[in-house]
Amino acid sequence: MSGWVRVVGLGPGPDAWLTEEARRALADATDLVGYHVYTNRVAARNDLRVHGSDNGDELARARHALSLAEAGARVAVVSGGDAGVFGMAAAMFEAIDDGPAALRSLDVTVLPGVTAMLAAAARLGAPLGNDFCAINLSDNLKPWSIIEKRLALAAQADFVIALYNPASKARPQQIHRAFAILREQRTGAAVVVLAKAVGRPDQEILVTTLGEADPNAIDMRTLVIVGAPTTRCIERGTNTPWVYTPRWLSEP
Amino acid sequence: MSGWVRVVGLGPGPDAWLTEEARRALADATDLVGYHVYTNRVAARNDLRVHGSDNGDELARARHALSLAEAGARVAVVSGGDAGVFGMAAAMFEAIDDGPAALRSLDVTVLPGVTAMLAAAARLGAPLGNDFCAINLSDNLKPWSIIEKRLALAAQADFVIALYNPASKARPQQIHRAFAILREQRTGAAVVVLAKAVGRPDQEILVTTLGEADPNAIDMRTLVIVGAPTTRCIERGTNTPWVYTPRWLSEP
Repeated sequence: MSGWVRVVGLGPGPDAWLTEEARRALADATDLVGYHVYTNRVAARNDLRVHGSDNGDELARARHALSLAEAGARVAVVSGGDAGVFGMAAAMFEAIDDGPAALRSLDVTVLPGVTAMLAAAARLGAPLGNDFCAINLSDNLKPWSIIEKRLALAAQADFVIALYNPASKARPQQIHRAFAILREQRTGAAVVVLAKAVGRPDQEILVTTLGEADPNAIDMRTLVIVGAPTTRCIERGTNTPWVYTPRWLSEP
Repeated sequence: MSGWVRVVGLGPGPDAWLTEEARRALADATDLVGYHVYTNRVAARNDLRVHGSDNGDELARARHALSLAEAGARVAVVSGGDAGVFGMAAAMFEAIDDGPAALRSLDVTVLPGVTAMLAAAARLGAPLGNDFCAINLSDNLKPWSIIEKRLALAAQADFVIALYNPASKARPQQIHRAFAILREQRTGAAVVVLAKAVGRPDQEILVTTLGEADPNAIDMRTLVIVGAPTTRCIERGTNTPWVYTPRWLSEP
């Protein structure tokens, strides 16, 4: 029996956000590889070997998965959200590109999933209803100067901006700086959404503005959406307002 | 029994890309509303009234769904891909925002799904592995000048760029113009992917370059991904190469 790797996004929240294809891959796998927070979300089975690891060193994790598959294992590599959006998929192909040529004939497939910004957007209404971008605010693998440049250009383009990994214990200041850059380009009235742990039991969603958003309330489990100038709120009494970005734009 | 609206993305391809939550909403619905190409993808039931319509006038479709729900129906409004990304979700909230206040107390929920760029990316490897943006190339609802500005700024930001609705019979020239703008900012060697009908039986995926991409090969069912300067191909003999964008970036 020949081995394979399936890179599976578990979605950001409940199992009900998993696709049927992802569910089948998890059921067929002999080995499960990933950050332990994600491997813990997959139901245990007697015939499933779990290789949970600490956060970080995604390349080593990718190489481990590839070596298991080369030895005949059916390996599910799990990420939160969609594995192709700041998850394990890019690390997997970096490992293949840098590895021996034999890896190129392995059966490696990425299965698409629901990424955090789509889940947060759905809970809010339709904030991504016009053109948008996704920026990973972590400078672990790229210079901060590039992130600053991207934030400024994205704001000038009037994109709705989704910020992934906006803060961590090791990087508490970057979201402060990001808001400062965005405030130079957009008015304080711009809609901002802080979506923490979307779809999880401890979900917290706050709709605020660029002028009032508190960077200290943002942690590594928060997805931040900064609205475009046209993004609007629909107030609903005591419920969280709906947030949407109209499809149309007027002549400038 | 009180009515509701669920705005459901069917995903771009096979039923296996549908989430369990979306599947349940379709099973619980009494009424199905959407462009007939999408309503046709939902299995018929004796107790499901189908309101398929032609393409266009999403606002009228949204108002129809809302009026059915106000009368007590359980309405699934369907889009391809994810309803929040250039699908029916934004039109639904535009209709609510412009409608009577009573609509704000209706049970209207968007269910997240797999949008076309995530599915195309998964089939290719990990082209969205670094920061990216999504631009709807249709100027039916926004001025073309804004689209041109966004393309230029997105290229300057070195985003991976996903182009939705790149062409139609009524708009065959815009993808030509878009490529011309991108060629001013990026070298001809930049990786370009044309992903047609991703996940459908007639799927066609072509990996090419900005210099060689043929705009005439692009139609309304094509999702175009223009790689960042760092996006790479992994050749695999006669198979379609894997395409990925590394997570890391060097100092400029």
